[in-house]
Amino acid sequence: MQGLHIEITFGKAERIGPGKVRLLELIAEKGSITEAAQAMGMSYRKAWLLVDAIDRLFPRPLIEKRVGGHGKGGASLTPLGEEVIRQYRAFEERCQAALESDYPLLMEGQPVPRD
Amino acid sequence: MQGLHIEITFGKAERIGPGKVRLLELIAEKGSITEAAQAMGMSYRKAWLLVDAIDRLFPRPLIEKRVGGHGKGGASLTPLGEEVIRQYRAFEERCQAALESDYPLLMEGQPVPRD
Repeated sequence: MQGLHIEITFGKAERIGPGKVRLLELIAEKGSITEAAQAMGMSYRKAWLLVDAIDRLFPRPLIEKRVGGHGKGGASLTPLGEEVIRQYRAFEERCQAALESDYPLLMEGQPVPRD
Repeated sequence: MQGLHIEITFGKAERIGPGKVRLLELIAEKGSITEAAQAMGMSYRKAWLLVDAIDRLFPRPLIEKRVGGHGKGGASLTPLGEEVIRQYRAFEERCQAALESDYPLLMEGQPVPRD
């Protein structure tokens, strides 16, 4: 089975790819950076750095931190954050469909030993 | 300026991406793995490992090593190797065109500091 790993590169090195997008999706789902980090098996610090990196790519924030009652904070996506995810997934799906329909050779590869 | 970094993933971890494809293109251009490696600023060993990895993804070889006269060996792409490059670049171009025309938000990102 072939899959696509698509990264959109901004400037010299900044990228949006499947890891950052998945993190945003999990933040939306769980309402918490801590829980999103746990679900991806990464440290809070690493998740925070990724969030910061993706946030700095856009002129307005993708993520909103809330201070909750009873000591419970949380995080959610802004409408801009939701739209970035939506467009990334739509773009990814479109490329995958093109790959499957029109580039047969790239779909044929598979990791086989050969001697 | 936004660019795309597209990798096609086979099975669990094997990938074809811009690095391996560029290496194949340079081998075709220069007729030599050694010179292609130099042009990419990598060791012969690293280039050889990449060539081996991409070669193992397909049931037939992408690269042909020649033993030349006067002690000059060389390498060239097989027709399969040429076609893999062609399809990868065509696919990449198609995704880039889709990105530019239909996913404005993903084109808007840029690495800017924000405080």
